[in-house]
Amino acid sequence: MASPGSGFWPFGTEEGSAAAESPGTARAWCQVAQKFTGGIGNKLCALLYGDAEKPVETGARAASPGVAEPRLACTCDKKPCACQKAEVNYAFLHSTDLLPTCNGEITTMSFLQDVVDILLQYVVKSFDRSTKVIDFHYPNELLQEYNWELADQPQTLEEILLNCRTTLKYAIKTGHPRYFNQLSTGLDMVGLAADWLTSAANTNMFTYEIAPVFVLLEYVTLRKMREMVGWPGGCGDGIFSPGGAISNMYAMLIARFKMFPEVKEKGMAAIPRLVAFTSEHSHFSVKKGAAALGIGTDSVILIRCDERGKMIPSDLERRIVEAKQKGFVPFLVSATAGTTVYGAFDPLIAIADICKKYKIWMHVDGAWGGGLLMSRKHKWKLNGIERANSVTWNPHKMMGVPLQCSALLVREEGLMQSCNQMHASYLFQQDKHYDLSYDTGDKALQCGRHVDVFKLWLMWRAKGTTGFEAQIDKCLELAEYLYNKIKNREGYEMVFDGKPQHTNVCFWYLPPSLRGMEDSEERTSRLMKVAPVIKARMMEYGTTMVSYQPLGDKANFFRMVISNPAATHQDIDFLIDEIERLGQDL
Amino acid sequence: MASPGSGFWPFGTEEGSAAAESPGTARAWCQVAQKFTGGIGNKLCALLYGDAEKPVETGARAASPGVAEPRLACTCDKKPCACQKAEVNYAFLHSTDLLPTCNGEITTMSFLQDVVDILLQYVVKSFDRSTKVIDFHYPNELLQEYNWELADQPQTLEEILLNCRTTLKYAIKTGHPRYFNQLSTGLDMVGLAADWLTSAANTNMFTYEIAPVFVLLEYVTLRKMREMVGWPGGCGDGIFSPGGAISNMYAMLIARFKMFPEVKEKGMAAIPRLVAFTSEHSHFSVKKGAAALGIGTDSVILIRCDERGKMIPSDLERRIVEAKQKGFVPFLVSATAGTTVYGAFDPLIAIADICKKYKIWMHVDGAWGGGLLMSRKHKWKLNGIERANSVTWNPHKMMGVPLQCSALLVREEGLMQSCNQMHASYLFQQDKHYDLSYDTGDKALQCGRHVDVFKLWLMWRAKGTTGFEAQIDKCLELAEYLYNKIKNREGYEMVFDGKPQHTNVCFWYLPPSLRGMEDSEERTSRLMKVAPVIKARMMEYGTTMVSYQPLGDKANFFRMVISNPAATHQDIDFLIDEIERLGQDL
Repeated sequence: MASPGSGFWPFGTEEGSAAAESPGTARAWCQVAQKFTGGIGNKLCALLYGDAEKPVETGARAASPGVAEPRLACTCDKKPCACQKAEVNYAFLHSTDLLPTCNGEITTMSFLQDVVDILLQYVVKSFDRSTKVIDFHYPNELLQEYNWELADQPQTLEEILLNCRTTLKYAIKTGHPRYFNQLSTGLDMVGLAADWLTSAANTNMFTYEIAPVFVLLEYVTLRKMREMVGWPGGCGDGIFSPGGAISNMYAMLIARFKMFPEVKEKGMAAIPRLVAFTSEHSHFSVKKGAAALGIGTDSVILIRCDERGKMIPSDLERRIVEAKQKGFVPFLVSATAGTTVYGAFDPLIAIADICKKYKIWMHVDGAWGGGLLMSRKHKWKLNGIERANSVTWNPHKMMGVPLQCSALLVREEGLMQSCNQMHASYLFQQDKHYDLSYDTGDKALQCGRHVDVFKLWLMWRAKGTTGFEAQIDKCLELAEYLYNKIKNREGYEMVFDGKPQHTNVCFWYLPPSLRGMEDSEERTSRLMKVAPVIKARMMEYGTTMVSYQPLGDKANFFRMVISNPAATHQDIDFLIDEIERLGQDL
Repeated sequence: MASPGSGFWPFGTEEGSAAAESPGTARAWCQVAQKFTGGIGNKLCALLYGDAEKPVETGARAASPGVAEPRLACTCDKKPCACQKAEVNYAFLHSTDLLPTCNGEITTMSFLQDVVDILLQYVVKSFDRSTKVIDFHYPNELLQEYNWELADQPQTLEEILLNCRTTLKYAIKTGHPRYFNQLSTGLDMVGLAADWLTSAANTNMFTYEIAPVFVLLEYVTLRKMREMVGWPGGCGDGIFSPGGAISNMYAMLIARFKMFPEVKEKGMAAIPRLVAFTSEHSHFSVKKGAAALGIGTDSVILIRCDERGKMIPSDLERRIVEAKQKGFVPFLVSATAGTTVYGAFDPLIAIADICKKYKIWMHVDGAWGGGLLMSRKHKWKLNGIERANSVTWNPHKMMGVPLQCSALLVREEGLMQSCNQMHASYLFQQDKHYDLSYDTGDKALQCGRHVDVFKLWLMWRAKGTTGFEAQIDKCLELAEYLYNKIKNREGYEMVFDGKPQHTNVCFWYLPPSLRGMEDSEERTSRLMKVAPVIKARMMEYGTTMVSYQPLGDKANFFRMVISNPAATHQDIDFLIDEIERLGQDL
């Protein structure tokens, strides 16, 4: 047998290719190469023909271009077929050639593998600092640049693959190390794998019958989360809901039911006028929930915050007493553990004392800050959370779980079920052959419910609690680095003093033209425009993304948040350089 | 250059392999093969060593088994790295070896590819009639059979892959041609691909800023769906929500706001006592929504149905008049297009006339039946839907889109926004540089919102409207086949007479011991037990799954539904044979 490296090795590893040298020979080689399964043959052929990207033309196809047969007939006599992938000409294939069509295995495997190849390329690019975070186009441009319309007639699989590529071309790389725009950033590889599995399993959380493993994993995971909240033995109840706003709405719904169970049948007409309390820095979902539940936004009383954005307990107590004097019934205090803009933690112990004194349901919205419970160094910021009646905690934020993954935890078991159940007999049959306590669907507001738990569970197995801790501690360390870097830097002003408690760092960038200018209407109005212009430029260059907003009488400022484990000190440095580069002329 | 087929071709295509012949030579060849990117080198090496499945042992690893280095160091000088996959020993690797870790590309590609291989195998098996639909275990057994607990310490990637395999081992194959258990069945390959892409893009629907393509696709798709409902030019509004129950709740919320906009601020205390109407066969989410929104379940008046499960319009009108006489304000009629159990279509034209006469918001819950709008043959069943104020339509049911995909469509534009917006300045900045009408997040109840549109959009591109039509027509034809097969068959009784309007076929199976028995308490009580026992046996054998339930005074009956394009006449025959096999001794 000849040894490698000698002249007969047919695959061009330098410039050119065997095909260019001798097309006939290459075709003959290719026929031999086709004996290999797993797509190897075709990849080899593609190499032989000098282009790994382009689909290989076969003799058969060249002779009759309309024929869309897969090149390799599956000869396995048992299923599932071991022939994973053959080269197929997608230009002549449609979704009807995929499974469950008869003998659709090869085309299906090949098609899904090609989609995965596109996705893997995107994933790798997402972490690559030399690529753009965003290839920005205005809505009307994007609508015109590609035909996105839906038609009567099918597209070919070739066009479907092109649709995938085009969609990703214009997508925001939310896993990019320089994407800081939202509380949810990053792309976790185990989380992604888990989400892909969830899609393939394609089931619904309402009964054990159709989601046995996922129902058990929800049970295990919620119990663990309750343990971390500090409820003895992890006892209590909970659910994964479609986002923090819905989790907060659940809390309000359950708190109302606990105090006035008759509301379920009789409605708000039958009960006294309720009021809820939350801080002026809290998330807008508390008001949204109150509007939806028929309580009304006027019945959400906003408690004053200190300059760091923390609820002032004395103001809370004052407003509770005031509401009671007016004849209203305080039923809920929603404290925030990690506010959206400042990242502030309300003083939970003091709030718990007040809730106890006035017998009010204490909810903690830890959508953003809940992740800090994983960190031995930082969890003290949530001291008192163990006294809450309910907790919102979104692992899709600080823990980097793919969207969406939000948990509502409830201390009292059974309350969710009583509050929401409707006993649908077609779904929750009482004469089934297994333990019905695992059919948890009737405690949800949703009927069908997506499997959101698996990605969190698998990531937790892969990282361990200590892995999440390391990831979170690193993000907080980066925030402190940013704070230290800019607090005394020329051209920067902090929105509030002191080290950030979470990863939120709020600051103004002052272009040279504004520095030293006295506080005046003109200065405020010019400052108001700085962040939006810099942000627009960032998006047009596509180099980084960070959020900004006004707050009360404060002009637009940048709110930097770090939840992406891919970010490094260099990325923080880059952000600062970029703000200065894009804003110095303003 | 030598021609193929001569003796030097090193890859064993018959029995044995180059490695067996000469391990040294194989290794040398392998080194050359490693020059190829895209994982080809490693696959070739695996073949050279005679086993494409088993990870290849390298000399380095054999010498020092604790070292978990990827075999090929990435030598590319530009990223993204083109080296897609190397053989890696997962027993020594953790999630921290994956991206975004430095030089994590190879391990990541390899890991994700191995997960995909597990998933592809599962997908192919899902369609294989020789595999079980379910490998059933009781909850306590399943909890004990594997350690599902979450720990402080990380697991290796080898264990993570095992977790994936184990999870799928116990999963229900919801794409299996003999899985008939829910309204959502089947596993669409293009839908799956789209869901995988959605996971990789990992973004949030609230703003154009972070989901430009998906926001536009939602716009295009909702407009198309409204066109199919029959609203001129597809005008109107809408949103993809986390399931039909939430879509129905939205409808109720918007209808209330339309009539009494002050409810948003003032709550239910400020407005008259409202009542809603829906049929006794409607989905339980109408009551669930009323409970949540503070309206109360007592204010949902259930209208009588005819024996086919259709709302009786005269009873609706009578109850409206009655409610008004009592001083209540009728604000919503929720008609059902495709009831959950019987698959009945309420008479929408007659209901629209009544809603018009009494100025009541008409909602159509077409979660299950909306798909029939895609069929020229069957869409007449929804005649009158164009007169609705809002429509729920779940493409994840009859159209086979992966879970979840539910649309709420609203005829009046802008109403959702006014009803739900809270103007969060940190998210919906008014001074952004693009057309803000594409920031649709503030019309949602959710803050974060999962991208549910892409799978529907991509499937629609792949099938065209005509493809969905063919799929739906086929399911309805199968339901008719089942109906014709059993309507006069010995041992069967239909729950209602006549050809099914949707794919729901409701029937009792009477074991020989019950046949000819007179209608009596004993017969009812024995019949009550038949379906649960057969179902339990089905699950234990794992051969098929179909739902059952009681309804009113009717004993447990089977509700067969067909939404899986994989099902064939043979599968219907199989179901009947299986029911008889498992139930004949009862």
